[in-house]
Amino acid sequence: MNFETLSTTRCFDGELKRIRHRADTLDCDMTFSIYLPPQVAQGEERPVLYWLSGLTCTDLNFIEKAGAQRLAAELGLILVAPDTSPRGPDVPDDPEGAWDFGLGAGFYVNATQAPWSKHYHMYNYVVHELPALIEANFPATNQRSISGHSMGGHGALVCALRNPGRYQSVSAFSPIVNPMHCPWGEKAFSHYLGEDRSQWQQWDTCELIATASERLPLLIDQGDKDGFLTEQLKPELLRAAAAAAGHPLTLRMQPGYDHSYYFIASFIDDHLRHHAKALDGAEAPQAR
Amino acid sequence: MNFETLSTTRCFDGELKRIRHRADTLDCDMTFSIYLPPQVAQGEERPVLYWLSGLTCTDLNFIEKAGAQRLAAELGLILVAPDTSPRGPDVPDDPEGAWDFGLGAGFYVNATQAPWSKHYHMYNYVVHELPALIEANFPATNQRSISGHSMGGHGALVCALRNPGRYQSVSAFSPIVNPMHCPWGEKAFSHYLGEDRSQWQQWDTCELIATASERLPLLIDQGDKDGFLTEQLKPELLRAAAAAAGHPLTLRMQPGYDHSYYFIASFIDDHLRHHAKALDGAEAPQAR
Repeated sequence: MNFETLSTTRCFDGELKRIRHRADTLDCDMTFSIYLPPQVAQGEERPVLYWLSGLTCTDLNFIEKAGAQRLAAELGLILVAPDTSPRGPDVPDDPEGAWDFGLGAGFYVNATQAPWSKHYHMYNYVVHELPALIEANFPATNQRSISGHSMGGHGALVCALRNPGRYQSVSAFSPIVNPMHCPWGEKAFSHYLGEDRSQWQQWDTCELIATASERLPLLIDQGDKDGFLTEQLKPELLRAAAAAAGHPLTLRMQPGYDHSYYFIASFIDDHLRHHAKALDGAEAPQAR
Repeated sequence: MNFETLSTTRCFDGELKRIRHRADTLDCDMTFSIYLPPQVAQGEERPVLYWLSGLTCTDLNFIEKAGAQRLAAELGLILVAPDTSPRGPDVPDDPEGAWDFGLGAGFYVNATQAPWSKHYHMYNYVVHELPALIEANFPATNQRSISGHSMGGHGALVCALRNPGRYQSVSAFSPIVNPMHCPWGEKAFSHYLGEDRSQWQQWDTCELIATASERLPLLIDQGDKDGFLTEQLKPELLRAAAAAAGHPLTLRMQPGYDHSYYFIASFIDDHLRHHAKALDGAEAPQAR
């Protein structure tokens, strides 16, 4: 598989790389960031935490602002942050240029409706094509965890719930847990997936959790001063769905926190430790 | 003193605020960021670390990218990050719009030459006006430390060397140590201070260190893959000046690191611990 290394930057004694490659599933060039902890310079293979970002983000927001590399270096976790949609001059965008659909807003689904279905297959990219590239070309084991924020929290939960055994652990910050029933999700799904709402259920955490064959524990942090809390995020719906299904859920309402990367930075260490515990080959998290 | 709180964001159980105020020394409105660690919510006054950023930066680069709030919260340090120049439609900029002079490039001096002398008094702002505002309006003690990056590393060193007793500690990342003898400094000083080079010496670390009346130890980190190392930064000149003066200097050449905030993030904890040790009222740094 061909790829181009755009930059290599030393960070916490490891290496941060930006990689551009042709993504077959998306029919366009894509750029992702990968952080290789210092252990790989000693010839070790390490497990991977995939991070899915939210609306308007690229591969850089998490890498620049979450402060995750510090503890990832200590725990020996590779971090991989993909972009949030297909990109390029041929990729269609929201006709009005809105920020909640189209470019920067792929919603981690496989679109079925024209014109979106030519490029917008972020689910296949994130679950299959990107890990195949990582595991073939970087010192990564096939031990994987997944996390994300907002639209990316939705993506992380859906990827894990749809793929029993593929991820060792999952977590999310401020996820869209019931996209079928919030404005962001309804807009995106009606365009990407069409008006038949029965087709939406396979992309909705609250729906998927009812029938999940693997009961991977969910760690979720949500700020109670998040401006999107009541209209878009609705964590109480996930709490009810998990309770009904008997799915293990740790949902932490964090007092005073908003939807920003300052919130993510404040709790990212807890998530990294959660994942490291589940991943063979990560260093044992120290007691806090 | 009047000021306006533009935003308040919870971060590591403390509060991050952006503040706009009229700066008399600069004759314009200025915006700075302040991080209040969780201890201040319990009514405590805390010492302050001032951070001076480099060329092109605003108050936000350090706050968003350095990852300093995590340990500042633990150590009980207030962080204050000012902008890097006066701002506003009346403030003159580099005639060619270059990024290394004018807006975003105040160089922490008091300009004496027209048209710069009307607004460009970043030294007085950073050393006097801003701390007066902080100590009068926030739960800050008069215990102060100062640090910065590149142009801001120059600023931090000059502010400390010119003001014995005013700062309890000082450190810098990738500082411009001898602006009289590098292209960035020569351009800025010739505009701000005029062509009489004898007037430049009071703003040059390598000059000031020769006659410093206070021998505050300097902690400096410098990446050896920094693209500005040989033409602009020249840390060997500081090493020689400190040795000649008998000034205590810890200059760490960090292998593989560049000039970016990824470098700063990788070592900011060491600097915060260095300052916390010197500041009355900070929590004792834990052994590493």
